[in-house]
Order: sequence, then structure tokens, then C-alpha cells
Amino acid sequence: MAFLSFSIPNLVLTLFASIVTATVAPVAAGSGIPEVKAYLNGVDAPGILSFRTLVIKIIGSISAVSSSLLVGKAGPMVHTGACVASLLGQGGSKKYGLTWKWLRFFKNDRDRRDFVTCGSAAGIAAAFRAPVGGLLFAIEEMASWWRSALLWRAFFTTAIVAILLRAFIDICKSGKCGLFGTGGLIMYDVYSADASYHLADVPLVLLLGVVGGILGSLYNFLLDKVLRIYNFINEKGIAPKIFLACTISILTSCLLFGLPWLASCRPCPSDASEACPTIGRSGNYKKFQCAPGYYNDLASLIFNTNDDAIRNLFSKDTDKEFQHSSMLIFFVTCFSLSVLSYGIVAPAGLFVPAIVTGASYGRFVGMLVGSHSNLNHGLYAVLGAASFLGGSMRMTVSLCVIILELTNNLLLLPMIMLVLLISKTVADAFNGNIYDLIMKAKGFPYLETHVEPYMRQLTVGDVVTAPLQLFHGIEKVGNVVHVLRTTRHNGFPVIDENPLSETPVLYGLILRAHLITLLKKKAFLPTPNPTVNDAFSQFSAVDFAKRGSGNGDKIEDIKLSEEEMEMYVDLHPFANASPYTVVETMSLAKALILFREVGLRHLLVIPKISNGSPVMGILTRHDFMPEHILALNPLLARSRWKRLRIRFPPSLKPF
Amino acid sequence: MAFLSFSIPNLVLTLFASIVTATVAPVAAGSGIPEVKAYLNGVDAPGILSFRTLVIKIIGSISAVSSSLLVGKAGPMVHTGACVASLLGQGGSKKYGLTWKWLRFFKNDRDRRDFVTCGSAAGIAAAFRAPVGGLLFAIEEMASWWRSALLWRAFFTTAIVAILLRAFIDICKSGKCGLFGTGGLIMYDVYSADASYHLADVPLVLLLGVVGGILGSLYNFLLDKVLRIYNFINEKGIAPKIFLACTISILTSCLLFGLPWLASCRPCPSDASEACPTIGRSGNYKKFQCAPGYYNDLASLIFNTNDDAIRNLFSKDTDKEFQHSSMLIFFVTCFSLSVLSYGIVAPAGLFVPAIVTGASYGRFVGMLVGSHSNLNHGLYAVLGAASFLGGSMRMTVSLCVIILELTNNLLLLPMIMLVLLISKTVADAFNGNIYDLIMKAKGFPYLETHVEPYMRQLTVGDVVTAPLQLFHGIEKVGNVVHVLRTTRHNGFPVIDENPLSETPVLYGLILRAHLITLLKKKAFLPTPNPTVNDAFSQFSAVDFAKRGSGNGDKIEDIKLSEEEMEMYVDLHPFANASPYTVVETMSLAKALILFREVGLRHLLVIPKISNGSPVMGILTRHDFMPEHILALNPLLARSRWKRLRIRFPPSLKPF
Repeated sequence: MAFLSFSIPNLVLTLFASIVTATVAPVAAGSGIPEVKAYLNGVDAPGILSFRTLVIKIIGSISAVSSSLLVGKAGPMVHTGACVASLLGQGGSKKYGLTWKWLRFFKNDRDRRDFVTCGSAAGIAAAFRAPVGGLLFAIEEMASWWRSALLWRAFFTTAIVAILLRAFIDICKSGKCGLFGTGGLIMYDVYSADASYHLADVPLVLLLGVVGGILGSLYNFLLDKVLRIYNFINEKGIAPKIFLACTISILTSCLLFGLPWLASCRPCPSDASEACPTIGRSGNYKKFQCAPGYYNDLASLIFNTNDDAIRNLFSKDTDKEFQHSSMLIFFVTCFSLSVLSYGIVAPAGLFVPAIVTGASYGRFVGMLVGSHSNLNHGLYAVLGAASFLGGSMRMTVSLCVIILELTNNLLLLPMIMLVLLISKTVADAFNGNIYDLIMKAKGFPYLETHVEPYMRQLTVGDVVTAPLQLFHGIEKVGNVVHVLRTTRHNGFPVIDENPLSETPVLYGLILRAHLITLLKKKAFLPTPNPTVNDAFSQFSAVDFAKRGSGNGDKIEDIKLSEEEMEMYVDLHPFANASPYTVVETMSLAKALILFREVGLRHLLVIPKISNGSPVMGILTRHDFMPEHILALNPLLARSRWKRLRIRFPPSLKPF
Repeated sequence: MAFLSFSIPNLVLTLFASIVTATVAPVAAGSGIPEVKAYLNGVDAPGILSFRTLVIKIIGSISAVSSSLLVGKAGPMVHTGACVASLLGQGGSKKYGLTWKWLRFFKNDRDRRDFVTCGSAAGIAAAFRAPVGGLLFAIEEMASWWRSALLWRAFFTTAIVAILLRAFIDICKSGKCGLFGTGGLIMYDVYSADASYHLADVPLVLLLGVVGGILGSLYNFLLDKVLRIYNFINEKGIAPKIFLACTISILTSCLLFGLPWLASCRPCPSDASEACPTIGRSGNYKKFQCAPGYYNDLASLIFNTNDDAIRNLFSKDTDKEFQHSSMLIFFVTCFSLSVLSYGIVAPAGLFVPAIVTGASYGRFVGMLVGSHSNLNHGLYAVLGAASFLGGSMRMTVSLCVIILELTNNLLLLPMIMLVLLISKTVADAFNGNIYDLIMKAKGFPYLETHVEPYMRQLTVGDVVTAPLQLFHGIEKVGNVVHVLRTTRHNGFPVIDENPLSETPVLYGLILRAHLITLLKKKAFLPTPNPTVNDAFSQFSAVDFAKRGSGNGDKIEDIKLSEEEMEMYVDLHPFANASPYTVVETMSLAKALILFREVGLRHLLVIPKISNGSPVMGILTRHDFMPEHILALNPLLARSRWKRLRIRFPPSLKPF
């Protein structure tokens, strides 16, 4: 009976989360951090930041977290923050009638990206009540471009989050808000004025960091493999997806309910600071199936919210509370369940599972070390969580500040920094950051910051392939429609005849979206002669504002008569007359730096000697992908061990 | 007698600091942060990061801080860190025989810049024992370019600083290290588990922030004016400089000694937690000239180190200790002395004076508010320090974390964030960041991140002016020497004849330093025919490594015979064949973005229609300076109120 009343609500909640996710917004599944990170890099995958995704993410995340699955809420909260920001940045959701006129001023790529960065900072800030940590997370992990104005805006955002959280906690002190506000502004407070440790503790902590790094990279490796298997199942349709989610839910329920039987009952300590044993409330001592006066330590960890489990693991002066075997079982359970739960079709974060897993690992190490160390087991749990997070997520300063804001133990800071450094370094030798692995598995064309060594040996002329579509400054409407229908390109060079010589000159670059706007408004000329510049009277700037992803008009929707097809359109007022260009002999590595640092979508390649077309081609994000370049130049072997190689600093080469 | 024994050592120490600074390394005067910030932006002012500057900065800073002048140590420590990093980055100091062979691998611009960024992070980390704050300071205030690898390196640096500090504090617990290690890892600990405040406190804190912002911008304004007057004096030679420093020292001594007479003696509280009254040791109760059982509160603030004064101001449960008048006098004294002391010819930081000034302002506000607020006077002092720092230095996240790490009061974080936001916003309406003002006063050509609106109306063709010096791929030695002697340019385009047409083509860009290396090694050809590519056997990569600033060879030092002057030199192997280029019709604003984001020193301008020279000119940092552009185009008025204007987002314009 107890098992049924535990597992059936779990199953129902999981079922609900997976059904709404699978049917309404499949992109809301998973953490959302990889998607938002890819968006901030310039990958505009459809529907990722839509209003529908937002709703499902919130509902699904609440039910998934409540269903005892080992999934976190931080990732979904980042995604939620990003969705809200993106909707604000595109002036609300037109589809659902939620629009604000003044917000249309932000309808451009850069402002929307900045909004989304601030939104993701707010997500972490709200999830962990860590405003500075959230801001740093957005800098370190999410943003691909950073500038000082953005730092200050993100700080503003997280400051508002902090002030609101503080106000709500104040208001909720009466206890009317459920679990919200427990723990105050600091979620897992482990402050102690005398957290003393000495040089003798350093080797043990180093070892903890090394093993944490190995465990973290193993976690990434396994998660990647499991995701690939799940993808195989998920591709088969909605029913298998939901079936998979239910299987995981039932497995979780069985494990959680069955495992505490393995732990023996222990007598309550006589000097316990809280009630012992207890039923139904959070705390360190759970009765489970024990006799009065006894408690089950494994049940204390399992039959709690994740937050309470972490708080128990981090607690000080409780060194004798847990048994070695219980802690080991708990660690293995968390590790495997979090690997298995992430890939199901429901919103699921990775942060909290990683903290629980790492904390149980650290606490287990602390228990093994026992009295040989000056640090108590709770602090070992903090360091273990740091090492596991560092090994899996590979962040440094943001994790450091998040842990600091979670635990409020500034004296432990040097130790946390040390552990993060060690575990990140160790784990980097094996594989990449968990979010990058997920992003790669999803096939996003993410533009890396670093340049692959073989790119230095290529010129941009070597990778330009596509047959180029050009427009003349004054082009026939039929031509424009034909080109737009037959290609998927998003940018087209505009050329002009040169009265002084035979070869034409480059005028600029025009975007597909702007061409479609021109066609839609029918801003045509009857003859191919430029008129006086009255084009702007017909258009306002808002017509050319960037739409939300997927909301743009399509060329197929535009109907033009035969007569109109024979007319002309003057592209000059609407083309970007200052596109960034590189000469064909430019090193590919340097072109990538330009592309990446300036944040371009199109880069024009111009010939070195102009005796024909003034433009050789357009480079886009896809032309810089290692897969594309290696397919064109199969002789360039991609070094597998490039991370470990000593690189020759570029300026030493006399280029 | 007491006055003499106080003022004479002060004067001697100031004299020593100013003499060594004025005679040995005048660039070591002041904070050093503006210089390092300019260096990281690409301004290579001579001697700023040399070994000599390092030594003088350390010695001078110690004596200036000990001489009771109101100057800080954080700025000099940042400069010290940057100097150490730069010396490591250039492979040690050749002049003083301190070189390491393996360090030469870092002899390039980017690695040295990264080192210097990490060094400045380490400086703040060491000064305030705030590793994360130091790292963020380097990101927010110092670095002009930032990438994720650098974040991780700076984190490594500050982690080492934190671990070493922690270890030294552990070793120094016996008390053998003087004042080092007092306060432990947290310098001004104001931790209290029940720092409670409610919504009713918010308006008062807002007001504190607004006034703090106004005071901070007033401070910047006055400091800028005083610096301009001092520069006028300092230009007259070494003697007036030293005289000025001595005057300030005597003034400081007089003020500090005389002011406590203004405060009346107060009876010691019966429940004082420390000895009262005391002589000679730090603490809250100084006897000065009072009767036994009485103390002088102003003397308690003045006759202490700055650190102890801040600790007294931040202390809790001492709400009755200070009189209103004493606090006001102390605030005004600190404000004026720190404005007057900064410009003297000695190493002098701004951070600690700003904290003292701000803390006394905040404490004064707290005393005025009295019991109307839930916050104690110590917390008001913390918030006051935050508001004054925010108003003067205009940083957000780094100041927030530095204050957090200084005071260890995480519960106050939302308030600190709020105050920083308000004071920065208010102060930004009046003038710029203090370091930017100093940098401007020193005339460094600092390249701003933002683009001035009028730059959108110009093309690069409008600002290229200099008559261009070109080299041919195979050039006569005499020509090269002549051009190098008659111009100060650092980069020259290299062009080649085009066999297919009459107009030459652009081959690349060669640097002055590399040309001088070629001339020095006499890699000449007897005839203008390219030989087989054996040039690299004559040179190693190290020959072209970037030298330390001021250490490069000069063209005047190279002696060539008449015969050699008639020979030829093949520039092809040594030119950068992939220089970044822009077309002459490119918008100046977009060219600046390219120049700034990619971190260039030279940007080639190529003509749109090639019917003559393949290159129109070279843009350097100076061509983007507003002064230069406005001198060329006097009709473009520079809007004074651009900060307050609503800017039209660029993508809304159909460019």
C-alpha cells in the first residue's frame, strides 16, 4: 500500500509531464541550457524560445520535479528566463495577443540576445538564490559575446531577482507559501566561524578533486551514451517516448522505495538537535520502518526533497549520523538515476542532481577519512559537490560563486577554488563540458571560440563552394522570386555595373527577410531606372525589424501577378552597403576570428584580382564547421589530442 | 613634541617615496590602474611595466602608505601584479640579467596581455584577500578583450593567491608577521546571522545610494580638477614635484593631529568589549588627550591604520560610540585629503581612501537615521562604502563581490546590489569613471567599446589621410631605410606587380620591427630576383618575437654600407599575407567594431574600384579617436548628452 501510494502519484505526474511535453512542445524537454547557449551563439533553432515552450517548460518542470524523478529545476528555470526575455525582446507574442508597442524598439538581434543572456542569468539567480552566481554563469557558460554594457544590464537583472526574492521571503515568513523561503536567502547554510583547516588537509582535498573530476567526466560520458540510445527510442514517435518516461518513473519509485530496506535501523542520538525519529517532515532522522527510537539513515536522504537531502549532507556536527554503506548506496543511486532520467521527454535539469551526487560522494570521502582531517563531513560534502560539478560542467568562477552563495562559507573559498581547478583540469583531459556534448548530440552548428590548427593552413578561397546567387542593384522581380524559391540562402550580394570598366562592383548585401518584405509591399518600379529616393516613405523601420524565430513570412506565401513579375525592384536603399569582406587569400583562421568576434552571419569573400565577378562567395556559419572543412579537405587530419598539445603561439610565426 | 614625533616621520617617509619616484621611475606615481588599463587596451606607453617601475612601485607604495597620507595600496598592488606578469611575459628582464629561456614562448602580444590581466586580478585579490572579486575586477574594469580561456587562467591565478594567503595566515598565527593576517581571510568581518531588514528600510537605502552617487561623481570631478592643477606644477621639474608632496604631507599631519581637539572626550561605556581607553594599539577607544576613563572618538578613527578605521566604522553593536560631529569631520577630512593626496609624485591607490570616505559617510547617515531603521550603523557604513565606490569607480559586479568578500555578509547582498545600481546610475549622469578620467587626463588613446553616433555617417575613406608608404615585394634596401627613417609608421603594405594587368596587387603587411630585424641580420639579395625560400634558415621564430616595450632596436642604430644600400630584400616570407582589410565605402562605425573586437593595430583600406594602387591607406588606433575625426569633419557636432539620449537600435536602420 505504501509503495502504491508513493509510486502511483509519481507515475501520474511523470505521465502528465511527458504527455504535455511530447505533444505540445517537444523542444521543452531536457535542460534547455544547451539550446539557449546555442541561441546565444547565433543558432536560431525553431520554437526554442516561443511562448508555447515557456508554458510547457514551467508546467512540465513542476510536475517532473514533484514526481520524485532525479531531475533539477535550475536548467528549466534558465530556459524559462530565456523564453520570457526573448518574448519581451520580440515585443511579446503576437500569436497569443500579448504585445506591447514600445517593446518593438528591441526587435533586433543584438538586443534580443542581450535580453536572453540576462534572462538566463535571472534563471540561475532565482533557482539558487545566487544573484552574482547567476550573472557569472551567464558570462562564463552561456554568452558567446560579451561587452561591458551587458555586464551591467545582467547585474541589474539579477539585483532585481535578489531584491524580489528577499522581499518574498520576508512576506512568506508566516509560513503560508509552502516550501518557498525555507532556508532564507541562503539555501544550504553551512556557516561556521571556525572552519579551520591546515596544510595537512590539502593532499586529501586534492585527491577528492582528482576523483571528482574523473567521476564528472565519466558522468558526461555515460550521459552522452544514454542520450544517444534514448534518441533512438524517441525518434520512433510519441508513444515510445512516453513509455520510456513511465519506465524511468517506475524504476525510480522501485529503487527509492526498496533501497532503504538495505540500510539497518540506527538508534536516535540522545543529543539530537531535531526531533528523532520523524515521519512526513523534512529533517535528518526518518523513521521509515524502524522501531520507535530508531531511524533509517538512507530513508532520511531519500524521502526528502532534493534540497533537504543536500541540506542534510552539508550539515555539520552530524558526523556520526550516516553509515558508510548507506552513503555509498545513495551515491550510486543518484549517479545512475540522474544519468537515466535526463533524457526523458520532460523538462529536466542537471544542476541539482549533480549537486546531490557530488555531495554524497564528498560526504562518503569525508566518512572514509574520518578523524584524520580537520574538516567535518558536511564540508567534505560541499567540496565533493564542487568537484563533481567542476568535473561535469567545467565552469570555474561561476560554480565557485554559486557554491559560495549556496553555503555562505567564505572561509572555505580557497579550498573550493582549488577543488574546482583540479577537477576541471582532470576532466578536460577526457571529454568536453556536458552542455557542449548535449549540443553536439543535437547537431547545433555551434561556433567555437578557438581556431583548429589546420585552419591556419587554409585560405577562405579553399572553403567557398556554393554556386553564388547575385542580384543587380535594380533587379527583375521575377528573378528575385525565382532565386528565393530555389535557394535557402539568407543573404545575397548586390552588385552594380561600373561605368568606368567592364567588371561590375560590389554594392552590398541584402537579406532574404528584407527581400520578402519588399515583395510583400510590392515596392516595384515599372522600368529599370532608379527613381528619386522615396522608398522610405513606403516603409517604416519596424517593417524590417527582426521577427521572432519561425514568425517570418515565407516566399511561398507571396502571390504576384505575371505583370508584377516583369517589373523591377530597386535594392539599393535596402541593402547593407557596408558588409564585412575578406580577400580570397585570407587565412581561414583569421576569417573565423573576424566572423566570431564581430558576430556575423554572412561574410563576403572578394577576389584578389578583380577581373570578373566582384564577389567570390559568401561564408556562413556552416562553412566554418570542422565537419564541412574536413569533408572538403580530407587530407587534413584532425588531431584528436589537440587539447593536450603545446601550441606554438601564433605571433611567433612570421605571417 | 607629540606633533613633531608624528609629523617628522611622516614627512621623511613621504620625502623618500617622492624622491625615489620622481628620480628613478616617474611612471610609478599614482595608482597604476589607468596605465595598466590603457596597456590592456593596446596603448604601449614606455616604461609602464618595466622592472624599474616594479621596484619603485613596491618601495614607494610601502613608504607612502606608512606616512599617514590618505593613499591606498590596492592600485599599486594591481600595478605591481601587472609588472610582474609583464616581465614574465617578456621572458624576464634582459637589462638586469633576469631571464628564463622557456619564458620566451610567451613573447607575443596576446599572451603578454593575458598575463597582465591575470596579474592585475592577482593584485586586487591580494590587496583585499578577495580572489573572486579580483578576478571580476580584471574582467569588468581592466580587460578590453576577454575570452573564456582567459577567465579560467585568471581564476587559476587568483586561486593560487587565495591558497597562498590562507597558508601564510596559518603560518603567521603565532603573531610574528606584524599586522599581516589580522582579521584572517576576511578583512572587515561584519557577519551576523540575523541581519534583518524590511521593506521599510528600502527608501532610506535608496536615498543613501542617490547621495552616494552624487558624492562619488563630485569626488571624480574634484580629483580631475586637482590633477590638472598638479600636472601644471609637476611639469616644472623634480623639485616642485617633491615640494608639493611635502606640502601635502605636512598638511595631512597638521589636520590629523589637530582635528581630534575638536571632538569632546566621552566616557568609556561600562560594557565595552575591548579595553577603554587605550594608547598605541588599534581598537575602538583611543585615549588621546582625555582624562582616564574617557576616550576621544575622532582620535580612534584617525590614529589607526586605514584598515582599522574601516573595521571600526563597520563594527556592529557600537551604535553609541561616535558623535555626529566627529563622524562628519572625519568624512570631510577623508574626502578632501584623498582628493589632494592622489596626485602627488608617489604610488597612491584610490580604493582604500574611497572605502574610508564612503564608510564614514554611510555611518553618518546611519547615525542620522538612528533607531528609525532596522539596520545597525555598521551595516550603514558598509552600504555607504558601496555607494561611494559605485559612484566613483562605476563598477557593479566586481565591487559587489569585493565588498562581499571583505565583509562576509551574504544576507546584505540584495541591499549592496541595489545601492551599487543606484549610485552608479546617478553618477553616470554627471561624469565618467574615475580611471577613465585619469586616463583621459594623461592623454592615452584609449579605444572605447561604444561607437559614437556620428561615426555611422562616415566611411573609412573619409578619415584616411596620411600619405601612404608602400613597399614592393622585393624592395631596395636603401628605400626601406629611407622610409623607416622618415616616417614613424609601424606597419607598411607590401604590393606585388600583377602579370595579368597593369595595376599592382596587395600582398600583405609588414611591421617596422620585422623590417628592422631584416636589416640587422642583413638578409639581402644582390639582384631583385626572388631566390628559393631559404630565408627561414637564417632566422628563427624568436627573432621576430615581440620585445618588451622600449627594448626594440631602432633604425638609427643600424649601420649599412653604401653597397648594402644598393642591394634588395625579399619581404614576401616576412609579411603578414592575411591582413584584415575593409573597402573604402565601409561605414566607419563598422570598421571600428572590427578594429576593436578583433584587437587590431593596423587595418588596411582597399579601394572599391581597383584602377590604381591596390591599397588606399592604413587605419590605426589614432584614426578612430573622436578628436581626430572631429578635426577632419568639424561639422559633425559631438553630442554632449549622448549618454542620456535614446539611441535608435542599429538593426532598425535598413543598412
